[in-house]
Amino acid sequence: MTLADLRWPLERAARVHGESVAVTCAGRSVTYAELAERVARLGAALAGFGVEPGERVAFLGVNSLAHLECWLGVPAAGRVLVDLNTRLAVDELAFMVDDCAPRVLIHDAANAETAARLLDRCGSLHELVPDGDPYEQLIADAGPAALAPALGADTLATISYTGGTTGSPKGVMLSHGNLAANALHNLIITGHRADDAFLHVNPMFHVAGISNVFAATWVGARQVVLPRFDPATVTDTIERERVTLATFVPTMLAMWLTYLGEHPGADVSSLRNLHYAASPISPVLQRRVCETLAGCEIAQMYGMTEAAPTVTQLSPDTHRRGLAGEEPDASRLSSMGAPVPGVRAEVRRPDGSSLAPGEIGEVWVNGPNVMLGYWNRPEATAAALTADGWYRTGDAAYADAGGYLFMVDRLKDMIITGGENVYSIEVENALISLDGVAEAAVFGVPDPQWGERVHAVVVLADSDDEAAQIDEVALRDHCRARIAGFKVPRSFELRTEPLPKSGAGKVLKNPLREPHWRESARRVS
Amino acid sequence: MTLADLRWPLERAARVHGESVAVTCAGRSVTYAELAERVARLGAALAGFGVEPGERVAFLGVNSLAHLECWLGVPAAGRVLVDLNTRLAVDELAFMVDDCAPRVLIHDAANAETAARLLDRCGSLHELVPDGDPYEQLIADAGPAALAPALGADTLATISYTGGTTGSPKGVMLSHGNLAANALHNLIITGHRADDAFLHVNPMFHVAGISNVFAATWVGARQVVLPRFDPATVTDTIERERVTLATFVPTMLAMWLTYLGEHPGADVSSLRNLHYAASPISPVLQRRVCETLAGCEIAQMYGMTEAAPTVTQLSPDTHRRGLAGEEPDASRLSSMGAPVPGVRAEVRRPDGSSLAPGEIGEVWVNGPNVMLGYWNRPEATAAALTADGWYRTGDAAYADAGGYLFMVDRLKDMIITGGENVYSIEVENALISLDGVAEAAVFGVPDPQWGERVHAVVVLADSDDEAAQIDEVALRDHCRARIAGFKVPRSFELRTEPLPKSGAGKVLKNPLREPHWRESARRVS
Repeated sequence: MTLADLRWPLERAARVHGESVAVTCAGRSVTYAELAERVARLGAALAGFGVEPGERVAFLGVNSLAHLECWLGVPAAGRVLVDLNTRLAVDELAFMVDDCAPRVLIHDAANAETAARLLDRCGSLHELVPDGDPYEQLIADAGPAALAPALGADTLATISYTGGTTGSPKGVMLSHGNLAANALHNLIITGHRADDAFLHVNPMFHVAGISNVFAATWVGARQVVLPRFDPATVTDTIERERVTLATFVPTMLAMWLTYLGEHPGADVSSLRNLHYAASPISPVLQRRVCETLAGCEIAQMYGMTEAAPTVTQLSPDTHRRGLAGEEPDASRLSSMGAPVPGVRAEVRRPDGSSLAPGEIGEVWVNGPNVMLGYWNRPEATAAALTADGWYRTGDAAYADAGGYLFMVDRLKDMIITGGENVYSIEVENALISLDGVAEAAVFGVPDPQWGERVHAVVVLADSDDEAAQIDEVALRDHCRARIAGFKVPRSFELRTEPLPKSGAGKVLKNPLREPHWRESARRVS
Repeated sequence: MTLADLRWPLERAARVHGESVAVTCAGRSVTYAELAERVARLGAALAGFGVEPGERVAFLGVNSLAHLECWLGVPAAGRVLVDLNTRLAVDELAFMVDDCAPRVLIHDAANAETAARLLDRCGSLHELVPDGDPYEQLIADAGPAALAPALGADTLATISYTGGTTGSPKGVMLSHGNLAANALHNLIITGHRADDAFLHVNPMFHVAGISNVFAATWVGARQVVLPRFDPATVTDTIERERVTLATFVPTMLAMWLTYLGEHPGADVSSLRNLHYAASPISPVLQRRVCETLAGCEIAQMYGMTEAAPTVTQLSPDTHRRGLAGEEPDASRLSSMGAPVPGVRAEVRRPDGSSLAPGEIGEVWVNGPNVMLGYWNRPEATAAALTADGWYRTGDAAYADAGGYLFMVDRLKDMIITGGENVYSIEVENALISLDGVAEAAVFGVPDPQWGERVHAVVVLADSDDEAAQIDEVALRDHCRARIAGFKVPRSFELRTEPLPKSGAGKVLKNPLREPHWRESARRVS
């Protein structure tokens, strides 16, 4: 069976929509014919660096034309893209670079210093390619692109690092078939067309930020790229570019709606479909976005890197009927939606048997979008993927009678804050490395701006002189030197009594979490 | 890589849309939960007949609930559906039954006599299951459905017979993955949603007639099934059921628009998307349908059984802009459209190399929708499928600069009349078997009702007493006894001068065809 590889979307767009604008970014526009030419030259340039098929190419930077081209071009050339999160600390990035050994790092100006430090520290990294003139020169100088060999659907396309319960990030291996399947699924649930304009504002170093690159390319839609989220720029861009489709994380949505409220003259009526994704949304915000953008379809997506990423959708129709008070849709507004066509998601027991509606278990996911496994981590791969291809997400949920999934907890103890995943153990490890800290428990608590914020309960050593010195500022400073800024707790509880524990000595976070979530009408995480 | 099998659409619909109406047919409606239960029982009943996984089950009948259930149920049970064309002669059907040896034949009342004759003639056929009470009894009596084993995407789902240049029909083997991929592609280009109602009026024994069964099921849309096309019934059904989506062949469209013109009170405003497919459309009819159904999106599909079937689409936007006179869309109205996302189609030389825009070659197709091959026909399979998975369609076409395909001829010498494929050699063989006929050349000519009609140039034997007896009536009667009614020529030219031939003695049909097509503004076949 021949399956789509990631070259098909751009191949089609260059042929059918060659003269249409493909990408608009920072005042520059390129057509699909030009984009295909540039992407082919990027492949030739990588070969010129001596990067062999299957070898890794890293990228470090905000959204840009080069960033988008690396997603279209590196896998298309049979190489593997490793897109690094610019928000991580150098130590964290160095771990990833050492783990998967990219030969080349393409980076932007804002990350030049980090890039240089990585080159210094990581033996496998041989070349830095700054975006801007050097990157452009590279594209211009590349010879005619060599015809790439046939790529199978199982060919590795990207390694995307996610945090892990052990504290070491894991490299999620996604194939051409995984990302192509996800693009088809996204096309079905969003309905991109050639005359649409998609706004890419989510960071492309997350798979959620690029899954719509392949979908939009496949139908020849125009893609508007912003380097980062900013309410005024987003508003101006939607107005100027007549943007029709976008995906936001709830944190952005909240900030943006506040901005729109303060700027009633803003015209964002071109928007016809907006998805929010990547973290829980409050009922107030959910209603507010539907009311503010009354002419626009609003939908929610749930997924994860290992699923490339889309798993479920809470559809525009469910939002509309639910907010009008119609059941069962009103109750489903607090769910993550139902599995999209092409993906299966079920709530199961640890032995894989199915649970009845309402029973809490783990979300298992199956489909052509499910990852190949974790890079160099056979045990973690075996733990996550069953023999028949189901991915165990680690998310605890129940389903209603209609298969709508309601998240109740994350088995992996993960916090999603402003669309970023934070594994509590990483933060706990940072906290307890400070002298005077006896114990630490980190979890997410509801936050109007971030969906969840990282919260820490810190137990100070009883009879310790160091402990007397510790306050919130000291804890923050200590964390900041060790982990990415978005992982540093935004709020603390300092205490001397020990953390509650199970009979086996495992910390019980639920009694700690519970007071924070009691006020929240709907516990989603 | 896990790929969708054909159980996924109904599995999802039963879970997410279990209480919604799945099928309405002949005054009866079943929900998706009921449909899933019935389909599971059908699988158990087949096992009860002793039909092993991989063995064939034949169906002979018009569209019905049972017919739709066989498509969802026979492949889901790991058996192979052989859906027979009710328009064929018994000899033709017997060839197919002998070729693939189904154990069971499910048929409707109208085809009971044919079914009995097949049972009598074909040793492999052991059981007849008349639709109606016996079929319903079967479903009711079936025990709890056994859990079917895991099905791979390459598992054979159906054998669909098409005519062939040799005169023997070939069994196109389509896998679960083929039909599932086509369903995803159709969902993208049509945009079915849960609140849509799809009208199935094309015969389900053609793959084009069932590809929307899987698409509509996957999203939980309502499916309205009519046994056959009739303008009054279609109109009443669209009004009563508030049908939103449909696919017609141009012949139906022409008859239907005439009916609507005569019944100005008919309300078909619920239609939001209508595809036409399966045969060339006249520019007059194309404009007429867009003007008559002004609030409805109109699109064209092109495909073939071997591609399960969708290959290209001429989009609603192209119709709209083209009819408004905008280029390049106006020129593209006579094309078959561009490859849909997920499918590749290129115009190539016999050696597989690509041709420049405007150069005429053969249409090659590649994608997860391309058939496994022809049943028991390794040579025909090898001739049709390349080593890297491209299907050589036998259609001659050129592409414009944007990849839009313009059909110029069928290399296989096939006529499409009213949505049915007729291979000229079959008809020619029938004609020359009549004493007094020296030569015959059969081809399609433009016809306002049928798109193309079967036309025969018959050379009578010069000095033959039999020849003096031959007239159109004699030729028609002779054909009718040997081939299906839709294959019998609708018009004749009788002559005594020999057919034009190439140096190698091959009949040259182009000089014969040319006068018939000269009047046609756009030669599409």
